[in-house]
Amino acid sequence: MPSDIAVYGLGVMGRNIAHNMVDHGLRVTVYNRTAAVTEAFVEGLPADSTVHASYDLADLADSLARPRVVFLMATAGKVVDLVIDSLLPHLDEGDVIIDGGNSYFQDSQRRWQGLREHGIRFLGMGISGGEDGARHGPSIMPGGDPQAWPLVRDTFQRIAAKADDGEPCCRWVGEGGAGHYVKMIHNGIEYGDMQLIAEAWQLMRDGLGMAASEIAETFAQWNRGVLSSYLIEITAAILRVTDADGTPRVDHILDAAGQKGTGRWTAIDALQLGVPLTLISEAVFARTLSAMKDERVAAAQQLGGVTTGFSGDRAAMLKAIHDALYAAKIISYAQGFLQMRTAAVEYGWQLAFGEIALLWRAGCIIRSGFLDDIKKAFDRRHDLPSLLFDDFFAAALRDAAPGWREAVTLGVANGIPLPALASALSFYDGYRSATLPANLLQAQRDYFGAHTYRRTDRDPETRWHTHWSSDQTEVAIDD
Amino acid sequence: MPSDIAVYGLGVMGRNIAHNMVDHGLRVTVYNRTAAVTEAFVEGLPADSTVHASYDLADLADSLARPRVVFLMATAGKVVDLVIDSLLPHLDEGDVIIDGGNSYFQDSQRRWQGLREHGIRFLGMGISGGEDGARHGPSIMPGGDPQAWPLVRDTFQRIAAKADDGEPCCRWVGEGGAGHYVKMIHNGIEYGDMQLIAEAWQLMRDGLGMAASEIAETFAQWNRGVLSSYLIEITAAILRVTDADGTPRVDHILDAAGQKGTGRWTAIDALQLGVPLTLISEAVFARTLSAMKDERVAAAQQLGGVTTGFSGDRAAMLKAIHDALYAAKIISYAQGFLQMRTAAVEYGWQLAFGEIALLWRAGCIIRSGFLDDIKKAFDRRHDLPSLLFDDFFAAALRDAAPGWREAVTLGVANGIPLPALASALSFYDGYRSATLPANLLQAQRDYFGAHTYRRTDRDPETRWHTHWSSDQTEVAIDD
Repeated sequence: MPSDIAVYGLGVMGRNIAHNMVDHGLRVTVYNRTAAVTEAFVEGLPADSTVHASYDLADLADSLARPRVVFLMATAGKVVDLVIDSLLPHLDEGDVIIDGGNSYFQDSQRRWQGLREHGIRFLGMGISGGEDGARHGPSIMPGGDPQAWPLVRDTFQRIAAKADDGEPCCRWVGEGGAGHYVKMIHNGIEYGDMQLIAEAWQLMRDGLGMAASEIAETFAQWNRGVLSSYLIEITAAILRVTDADGTPRVDHILDAAGQKGTGRWTAIDALQLGVPLTLISEAVFARTLSAMKDERVAAAQQLGGVTTGFSGDRAAMLKAIHDALYAAKIISYAQGFLQMRTAAVEYGWQLAFGEIALLWRAGCIIRSGFLDDIKKAFDRRHDLPSLLFDDFFAAALRDAAPGWREAVTLGVANGIPLPALASALSFYDGYRSATLPANLLQAQRDYFGAHTYRRTDRDPETRWHTHWSSDQTEVAIDD
Repeated sequence: MPSDIAVYGLGVMGRNIAHNMVDHGLRVTVYNRTAAVTEAFVEGLPADSTVHASYDLADLADSLARPRVVFLMATAGKVVDLVIDSLLPHLDEGDVIIDGGNSYFQDSQRRWQGLREHGIRFLGMGISGGEDGARHGPSIMPGGDPQAWPLVRDTFQRIAAKADDGEPCCRWVGEGGAGHYVKMIHNGIEYGDMQLIAEAWQLMRDGLGMAASEIAETFAQWNRGVLSSYLIEITAAILRVTDADGTPRVDHILDAAGQKGTGRWTAIDALQLGVPLTLISEAVFARTLSAMKDERVAAAQQLGGVTTGFSGDRAAMLKAIHDALYAAKIISYAQGFLQMRTAAVEYGWQLAFGEIALLWRAGCIIRSGFLDDIKKAFDRRHDLPSLLFDDFFAAALRDAAPGWREAVTLGVANGIPLPALASALSFYDGYRSATLPANLLQAQRDYFGAHTYRRTDRDPETRWHTHWSSDQTEVAIDD
């Protein structure tokens, strides 16, 4: 019997996706450029497995039902183009190529357009959840050719994570590179969530002098409330792990964070779109600063370190740190959705923001109950310009703001760096400012570069210039 | 007599540069694509002017001494390529094309390489100082073909701004796109300086309830100390300008800041290089947030605004705001120089950082006495890894830090957004942290993605993985 799908690339993600598909009754052809990898994969299968191992691309193509569906799990970048080129001679018009790797959305946009000219339907599919998600149910964000989606929808909704209400975390996102775009935003939000948790941890550890076990207990408790999420859950678990000598294992881990670039992509795209994505950008920069370990160690000798010794109400401050984390998380998601709102206009996508929140409820790293609240906000108002305009989130922010300010002040006073918590607060205070001091910037720009400005009390279209350094007269400028 | 140089493009910058050259005794050919613009330019000249007006490129080429030097002042982007293509048939091997516009450094890098193949020597020259600088002496940052520089050095050092010690603000920066790169960093720093001043202004206005005239007086006073700079000077001047009804003119200017993209380029490059350029990035994002005026006005109704009413020691808080501005400015320049340090390695340039500081002492928007202190720091130690390692700046930061923390706390408590002042403080506290909470990030990444980590107490090269969710054993990973 022909296979339903071919999985090209049997690295850990590809292997796990293939197993996941087999578990769900799919007939799968597997292929890897190195034959030994394919052999090792099939050797591990039960004798009655329906998996077909291919060792050349002609056989791979022959093994598939028509239209063929080839699922790539290759290293993002040039490799994907090379693999696609090698497949093309073996495919026919109407066949489907799916890129399930972590590709840059502009590459998916380009491949979608390029393959359309060959009559091949392309899907760029963001997949989140790591190894475990791939094996047992990831969050899947498909984009690309809308006509290809119905052909494979059932397959991917079967292998996807299921939310508590049974809904698969796999829905159509949009044309071209939209699926990988939403995956990119997901990853950026993941950077932000992780940095926020790290800052809350440091506030507890260095600001309040709490032991790892106490902090673990606090996170476990928070995981039963509004902060309930996979990342909070694993943080509690991590902080409980000790070395043989009883010291927390995390204390022995080198504090130099790696990154694979998707957070950086998110921040760069925000800059290009002109969206104030401050929190995630700070989280990306925080990782780069963490990687400068030797320089920091040297600077610490010259410039001192954190002051400790908290003498206030510890329970109240713990509550404040909780509220800071919750409020800043709302800001981070608000910024991420603001970026998707802008991207949809800029790149010509129809993005259903509530549906995107649903996609992230299970299977992926940022999964949390919080995403149900986001979905509800978009249900209440489909064209919600920002989460901050939703009554639920606005009330949550107003309630959390006093504690947020106290927690940030604790860090500011004691030398604890809070790039994400503090930048989120600046954004919140800026966003709710009817007037910002940017009028001074405009005056400065007009002073040194005759860039002109508009006035709030006259025709809003007219541009003005002041002769600042001479007689200070003001003139209207015709463009 | 043949002309020394041709100025191609007679917009306001080109016109002013041409006048500046004429003032310094240079024989100049002028050309503009629209003949009427050229005619208007020469009609304004005195009868004995040596300026030669060209109306076609063959004549332009004929009018020049050999090797020819053509100075372009065209809109950055595709136009520059088109202009260069149109010039090539009229030029000979060894001739020099200078791009004096605001080009992206990667474009200059590409043009330098491309023109070398044609035997044409290319210079990409960053020019700062706006219209007034162009006319009376800009800061000039030349890069490109090092063999072309001696041919034109005298010309550009003559028309450049002169620092107080008489030195021209025009020195060789480096090969390829290095000149435009340093100009880009200059512009990013300009964004940061402006945002910092705007935040200090808002702290005085909304935090302390000071009148515009009082604030103007304060800035004027600050301009006589360590903050002495062109931007502080014009801020004092701007705040003194009133409308006919006596209200400050700045209060009527729309608080939606424009941008032409160079700040954004700087931030994007920082992300690509992996340099924590937090302050300038926040300044860029602050402009984008300011531009969302309607959304902010609506959000202010729902989410309240700034609280006012300061009851502490006003003089002490003013001093704190001063110190915050000074400390954050040091951080901003430290981050900018850190980015240039990284860029020099990444793009293969020999950048003399002290010399770059000298270039910015006069003629440009960020000119200030502060730059002499930076030069001195690099004189004390040529391979200074960061301004924060210099004794002068380290002491300045230690002295300013208490006030900085107070000023940021004032904003945090009262809902005054301080994206630049607060992010600079987070960077400072992070940079001087021997240990950051990034070890938790690494543990999380290892938990959900098996990304592995290193340990501080074992061989630094070995990567470890913990089976977090099972028996919590730790294993060394062979790559």
